[in-house]
Amino acid sequence: MLRYVGLDVGGTTMKAAVVDDTGHPATAVSIPTEPHLGQERGLETMCETIRRAVAAANLTMGDIAAIGVATPGTMDIAAGLILDPPNLKPWRDVPVRDHIEKVFGLPTAFQNDANAAAFGEYWVGAGRAVPSMVLFTLGTGVGGGIIIDDHVLEGRHSHGGELGHTRIAWKGGRLCGCGQLGCLEAYASATSVVQRTEEALASAKTPSILSEARTTPNTPLTARMIFDAAKAGDALAQEIVRDTAYFLAVGATNVMHTIDPDMVVFGGGMIAAGDEFLQQIRDFVKEIAFPVPAERTEIRYAQLGSDAGFIGAAACGRQLLKSANK
Amino acid sequence: MLRYVGLDVGGTTMKAAVVDDTGHPATAVSIPTEPHLGQERGLETMCETIRRAVAAANLTMGDIAAIGVATPGTMDIAAGLILDPPNLKPWRDVPVRDHIEKVFGLPTAFQNDANAAAFGEYWVGAGRAVPSMVLFTLGTGVGGGIIIDDHVLEGRHSHGGELGHTRIAWKGGRLCGCGQLGCLEAYASATSVVQRTEEALASAKTPSILSEARTTPNTPLTARMIFDAAKAGDALAQEIVRDTAYFLAVGATNVMHTIDPDMVVFGGGMIAAGDEFLQQIRDFVKEIAFPVPAERTEIRYAQLGSDAGFIGAAACGRQLLKSANK
Repeated sequence: MLRYVGLDVGGTTMKAAVVDDTGHPATAVSIPTEPHLGQERGLETMCETIRRAVAAANLTMGDIAAIGVATPGTMDIAAGLILDPPNLKPWRDVPVRDHIEKVFGLPTAFQNDANAAAFGEYWVGAGRAVPSMVLFTLGTGVGGGIIIDDHVLEGRHSHGGELGHTRIAWKGGRLCGCGQLGCLEAYASATSVVQRTEEALASAKTPSILSEARTTPNTPLTARMIFDAAKAGDALAQEIVRDTAYFLAVGATNVMHTIDPDMVVFGGGMIAAGDEFLQQIRDFVKEIAFPVPAERTEIRYAQLGSDAGFIGAAACGRQLLKSANK
Repeated sequence: MLRYVGLDVGGTTMKAAVVDDTGHPATAVSIPTEPHLGQERGLETMCETIRRAVAAANLTMGDIAAIGVATPGTMDIAAGLILDPPNLKPWRDVPVRDHIEKVFGLPTAFQNDANAAAFGEYWVGAGRAVPSMVLFTLGTGVGGGIIIDDHVLEGRHSHGGELGHTRIAWKGGRLCGCGQLGCLEAYASATSVVQRTEEALASAKTPSILSEARTTPNTPLTARMIFDAAKAGDALAQEIVRDTAYFLAVGATNVMHTIDPDMVVFGGGMIAAGDEFLQQIRDFVKEIAFPVPAERTEIRYAQLGSDAGFIGAAACGRQLLKSANK
């Protein structure tokens, strides 16, 4: 059976594993990214992570058919280049694909990390049975990836699926990390959940469990605490969670009225919020989307957790090999 | 050379022409749709419009290789069915494709009208040199069509490219004709241009050319009058036009951060507003989109006018024939 290495480069760690042709991953390995040590060192760490992943699978490089690498943007996907990602400072114009390809002498695919995660979920996760799927990743930011008929929608300028930076408020919108106003990310990321809660607590007239938590030293508010408080019945937290579900429903509806996929999948740390949160998103979508897609579009949580990135990167390597052999 | 008939069914008229393999249309013909006469009669009128188009080109049906029909939604594109379009009441569940195919014994394609217009512009209009293109049609409503690598993005439930019904205001948005709040169409259609002007005039402190126009009997305000007043230097009209350009820039940016096409094209009656309006849209996009797509995505006016629909319908017939012959 053919085997691939998938490498997911994040701002904090790089994670890789050998993935077989059925999408099953061997033991994953990870190494700190330490971008401040420079991009030359970064490229070496990528190669080392790949080697360790192969060793962890009790294989040698000769057993590997192709490699896939996923990195955060900004990037030029077609050119295989990292440009200047905010999470990988001070890297700039790093020829990732060509470097990896040269070091290992193997077909190497290069992809945006959220796109790769979407492709992983599409291959063997939540979307494995459908022809088209959109993934929203909910973490400190909101990422996105779009897969239609087995193809990642990369876009002409590597900006396909930047769903966190579609605007849901043309006026008076919240400030986004990207510097613009009104982006979905400014409303629906874990960061925004915390910020909106801080604001609500500051102006709250009724007591909240979270007010107490906040006065305890050294316990900064987290999205997790807020979702837990909502489950425990805290009214303020419940309103924040409900608003978050609504913002995500607006984001989902906008992509349903643009791409109209079979399925919309939510992944990332925030889905630890559980099934009630997912149901709230579904209910809001039913209220605001056109009747047919509202009724028929499946809305689900992702299934691969943080493995989606390297599994999807491996899937990109696999697809590269397949299309080369056509 | 192969020839096709493209038929564009609108709420008021049906328009058709023979289109040759280079996208050149022969003389177009049109017949009133009169949907109130019922859908059986509607199907007959479609066939009659096709026959007259062939006659107008001095050809016979034997000269035609395929037919394409475009209709307004709602519809089931894959099934070739009109469902219950608001513009074609009281039609319901009309098997357009199968009927036309049976009557003429020719391969028949069926497509949404805005998608067809986009495919027409992609084939021989504004987008003829690019691999991917998004069209916004600006008329009484705002329609959309998305073409990627020679394929119409129909969507899983025939709702691909419903760009007028993506939301640009999650809260306190304007009421849209679809019954929802905050849709792009509620801000950027010709209808909205007039409504927003009426509202501005009602609360205006400074005089406007348009206040006078309004007090003249039997001259209801039109988008055209408002764009003309803006060109003539009227401050109120200029603000309305500028806001409209901004709303469209938000819509364009959202689709650029989702699809990331080579080109965004604006078509429909409202582009009579002229080049200054287009430049305003471009300038706002440069302000609010990510730097690379902001810099590189071409933003243009459509070139085929109201012929885009039947030319695009013919293109769908042509594509059907080509894929059948593969």
